[in-house]
Amino acid sequence: MAIKRNKISVIGAGFTGATTALMLAQKELGDVVLVDIPDMEDPTKGKALDMLEASPVQGFDANIIGTSDYADTKDSDLVIITAGIARKPGMSRDDLVKTNSKIMQSVTKEIVKNSPDCHIVVLTNPVDAMTYTVFKTSGFPKNRVIGQSGVLDTARFRTFVAQELNLSVKDITGFVLGGHGDDMVPLIRYSFAGGIPLEKLISNDRLEAIVERTRKGGGEIVNLLGNGSAYYAPAASLTQMAEAILKDQRRVIPAIAYLEGEYGYDGIYLGVPTILGADGIEEVIELDLTDEEKASLDKSVESVKNVMNVLQ
Amino acid sequence: MAIKRNKISVIGAGFTGATTALMLAQKELGDVVLVDIPDMEDPTKGKALDMLEASPVQGFDANIIGTSDYADTKDSDLVIITAGIARKPGMSRDDLVKTNSKIMQSVTKEIVKNSPDCHIVVLTNPVDAMTYTVFKTSGFPKNRVIGQSGVLDTARFRTFVAQELNLSVKDITGFVLGGHGDDMVPLIRYSFAGGIPLEKLISNDRLEAIVERTRKGGGEIVNLLGNGSAYYAPAASLTQMAEAILKDQRRVIPAIAYLEGEYGYDGIYLGVPTILGADGIEEVIELDLTDEEKASLDKSVESVKNVMNVLQ
Amino acid sequence: MAIKRNKISVIGAGFTGATTALMLAQKELGDVVLVDIPDMEDPTKGKALDMLEASPVQGFDANIIGTSDYADTKDSDLVIITAGIARKPGMSRDDLVKTNSKIMQSVTKEIVKNSPDCHIVVLTNPVDAMTYTVFKTSGFPKNRVIGQSGVLDTARFRTFVAQELNLSVKDITGFVLGGHGDDMVPLIRYSFAGGIPLEKLISNDRLEAIVERTRKGGGEIVNLLGNGSAYYAPAASLTQMAEAILKDQRRVIPAIAYLEGEYGYDGIYLGVPTILGADGIEEVIELDLTDEEKASLDKSVESVKNVMNVLQ
Amino acid sequence: MAIKRNKISVIGAGFTGATTALMLAQKELGDVVLVDIPDMEDPTKGKALDMLEASPVQGFDANIIGTSDYADTKDSDLVIITAGIARKPGMSRDDLVKTNSKIMQSVTKEIVKNSPDCHIVVLTNPVDAMTYTVFKTSGFPKNRVIGQSGVLDTARFRTFVAQELNLSVKDITGFVLGGHGDDMVPLIRYSFAGGIPLEKLISNDRLEAIVERTRKGGGEIVNLLGNGSAYYAPAASLTQMAEAILKDQRRVIPAIAYLEGEYGYDGIYLGVPTILGADGIEEVIELDLTDEEKASLDKSVESVKNVMNVLQ
Repeated sequence: MAIKRNKISVIGAGFTGATTALMLAQKELGDVVLVDIPDMEDPTKGKALDMLEASPVQGFDANIIGTSDYADTKDSDLVIITAGIARKPGMSRDDLVKTNSKIMQSVTKEIVKNSPDCHIVVLTNPVDAMTYTVFKTSGFPKNRVIGQSGVLDTARFRTFVAQELNLSVKDITGFVLGGHGDDMVPLIRYSFAGGIPLEKLISNDRLEAIVERTRKGGGEIVNLLGNGSAYYAPAASLTQMAEAILKDQRRVIPAIAYLEGEYGYDGIYLGVPTILGADGIEEVIELDLTDEEKASLDKSVESVKNVMNVLQ
Repeated sequence: MAIKRNKISVIGAGFTGATTALMLAQKELGDVVLVDIPDMEDPTKGKALDMLEASPVQGFDANIIGTSDYADTKDSDLVIITAGIARKPGMSRDDLVKTNSKIMQSVTKEIVKNSPDCHIVVLTNPVDAMTYTVFKTSGFPKNRVIGQSGVLDTARFRTFVAQELNLSVKDITGFVLGGHGDDMVPLIRYSFAGGIPLEKLISNDRLEAIVERTRKGGGEIVNLLGNGSAYYAPAASLTQMAEAILKDQRRVIPAIAYLEGEYGYDGIYLGVPTILGADGIEEVIELDLTDEEKASLDKSVESVKNVMNVLQ
Repeated sequence: MAIKRNKISVIGAGFTGATTALMLAQKELGDVVLVDIPDMEDPTKGKALDMLEASPVQGFDANIIGTSDYADTKDSDLVIITAGIARKPGMSRDDLVKTNSKIMQSVTKEIVKNSPDCHIVVLTNPVDAMTYTVFKTSGFPKNRVIGQSGVLDTARFRTFVAQELNLSVKDITGFVLGGHGDDMVPLIRYSFAGGIPLEKLISNDRLEAIVERTRKGGGEIVNLLGNGSAYYAPAASLTQMAEAILKDQRRVIPAIAYLEGEYGYDGIYLGVPTILGADGIEEVIELDLTDEEKASLDKSVESVKNVMNVLQ
Repeated sequence: MAIKRNKISVIGAGFTGATTALMLAQKELGDVVLVDIPDMEDPTKGKALDMLEASPVQGFDANIIGTSDYADTKDSDLVIITAGIARKPGMSRDDLVKTNSKIMQSVTKEIVKNSPDCHIVVLTNPVDAMTYTVFKTSGFPKNRVIGQSGVLDTARFRTFVAQELNLSVKDITGFVLGGHGDDMVPLIRYSFAGGIPLEKLISNDRLEAIVERTRKGGGEIVNLLGNGSAYYAPAASLTQMAEAILKDQRRVIPAIAYLEGEYGYDGIYLGVPTILGADGIEEVIELDLTDEEKASLDKSVESVKNVMNVLQ
């Protein structure tokens, strides 16, 4: 029962991984190990040191190290995977899937070897299939392997709604099911401003435009940046999931969970409402869906399965 | 006496500017306008939007916009300048100074036009000379034009001491005078762990090594990153100065202030202990120096003057 | 456009007033003036000083003073009224109303004289009638005189729901209209756990029990304490309203607002969903009600009017 | 290695105990059990419930319960003792010591039975002797039984200095050795404003007045309140010590530690600078003292021993 700081490893020290490390440390959720490949060891160490040098000023106590040696991740309580490549011009989607899948396998083996009891949260795209790959490679129980997409998708939705209504983001909630981005199934009827259904506050046309903008939210940032993709909101999303688990908050958070019959699907990772706590996904919350919603979700599942088929 | 959110503009949307914008927003210090040149307008908008999309998850209410139009900065309470180029291979130091000085002049004119009552905090290197340029160009009173270097230098020093002693960064303080980096004049006798003089806790050899590492602290990160320079700790430092001013905290913070006789210097911007509050630099604190310290500070002043001479 | 800390006065230095002062200071929302009657001046000074002595440890910069002199409240941005007596054994409700009404009048005159531009938030019971009294006495526009009840009522409701479902309080929302306590009109259909309607997660019987417990929530604490009434949750509620106003957050918050036709009522203060920002109540949000809800609200209005009649 | 929330028990549900429970919960340091005697069970439950009802509004996830049954404290990581009586008119100091000592013994037995691996922090006065009593009764190793006095004494000192200089409390540090209150041995030469020795900023006369006011700081609050003693700053002090331990921060904090030769004393609990982390008092920091300081400390030790003699 000795008192012990949590240890969190973040795999992949790109913008998202690094920003996640910063946000975890700012919240003093534990000591952070930022990991990247040997070729990137020095930049990874540089980012970690720069963050650590921010700690006296920001007032957080958390060690942050950069490394390419998985031995440094030993006995992590939580591991967050942001590693992987982005699709390059001329690369087919299947090639992307195969490449990232191999990265997931290699990364996961190292994680399991060094932290056999940890939770794993996956961000790498295509995230449903990548979470599945990590799950299968790890041999971990399903509650300890979790994918991120819904926190980010709803964060974008909430931002757009807050702008539309000129209201605090604190009071806007959103709700999505299914895959990430284009395959997202928004449940507007479960989305509110201060508890008030959005349909009462925003016209259907505007709501549809907001949903469509949310679906394309990742692409909007990619197009603006010109070179690279979003990292602030993804990092915040990963940090919220980490906090829910490490502080055993039992929060109701949309997450990519392994389904065994829930919502009528089996053997697939899919975005659903979950309860996140010390045991990872402690529960998948099942909701009644309208026919239309169910049809959208079926389509989303098809899409996930198509990606998974690439991996057979 | 109407209630009004503060407005903060950050000029330069590189890593430091963007990270500063994030940290300002996380602390809900005001609405943030992130500004870069027209060629970078889209990436600047992209970063700002990505941050804004983190706000529902991180729970902060602050508008963040990206722009290349200074009209958007109108009536800022505080403007932070991170714009400028880094020295490129083959570029002489004098060329760097001249180029950044021109950038300071052009940026400052826009700031003054749009926010004649604002405070300005400068990060751009060589920061002593650049702060002087902004001061002269702005025509602002000296208390409203401030340079950053001491918060960052002491943050690095505090980090290294905390590591050396395996203690919380919260309890380590450091103290520097003079120029940034190599020209830094550390006052070890004013540096403590929980109030205990560091000389009592760390051997002279180790302390000297820590001071030397601090001096080269910027270079250490540059070398590790391979491409670019530190931004997390610089952004945290700027944010702390912004907070002290915007919340009128009257904090004792090392800052680059315009001296008119203090410490025996006149007409020069130099790193000294100051009191930062609603009026910017509300006071320069003068300390008795040992002969050795005074000699080091003279050298630091020489160094600053050499850079300023380039600008004549 | 000078930078200025907010100033907040809290009238009444009992447990609620004092705890509110602490919470305002902890959030660095401004400097705090805690006011009580001359007989209580010393204890008021004692509480303020004790809080101030907590500030170095808790790390907040906010001046806190205790006083019985309203001159010290001069130019407050926000004034919170917690003053008033509690009903004593043998005292009729009408006597309570009359006594507290006189206190409101006397306090309000002082507030108006010293801070003619401030916002006022009222907690004193019976809060609907007392807010009305403050409104009439002040001559302030309706947006600047606001009563608290809904934040507290929903806080209790949210707590009980979080316990029932063993979930984070962060993800539970509640929604009430009408008067405080017994007269509260809960809108369960606008109450959620992570966006999921509570009816889907909790049986009707249990929900009714929770609503009933919420209605009696103030009494439950009174009975347990034996001597005195709740102050932690009321103080937190007042602090949230203060934050929404002082940071111009435009939050969707239930508040006691002056109605001029909204919901079919006129010239009465009643608990309704509002948007709270720099202008106080910037908007009253009108919702369609079911017949049953409207009937309950009518009853609540009757109850408020009965109290107000005592004041004619 | 399962993830687990910390559990903290606070013995004594008076103002200090209750405020401590609130502050622990606000920082999400763990679930809190507030304990008082059976006669006070209902008020204790009432306070705990009231705090819990503040949690949705303040946004913290921490269970808080009130109880008189020590079984509810089972497996606490940390126990804070605030129980005990205050000296009443006509009561001799020896009677106070004897009464509180008995309370410490009875409380400690319950703590040890239910949480054999916990840390204990003691606030009850006279705190040096009471911490000793808890130590002896518990049979715990000395690092796990700690008294509070220096955080509070320095907090008061820092407050008075911040007022004197009109500076942020964040930048003022203080340093005390020895007993609480009158027996406090302030080390002004280790007390700073932004690292600058206070002697350079404040006249000797004023410094002496501040030290004297600090010594009498508890009495100043008692006199103002008229009925009862300080609780906000004491609660903040306990919370900081709890945070240092539970987050393994290795902070440099003045605490009442069991000395075995340090500073030339043996077998006595005395206020000294310590390093507080996961193992409780991980280190006592020894400082060279001037003859004058040593003499003051000797006097302080005499004072502690006189109290301890009452307990033989």
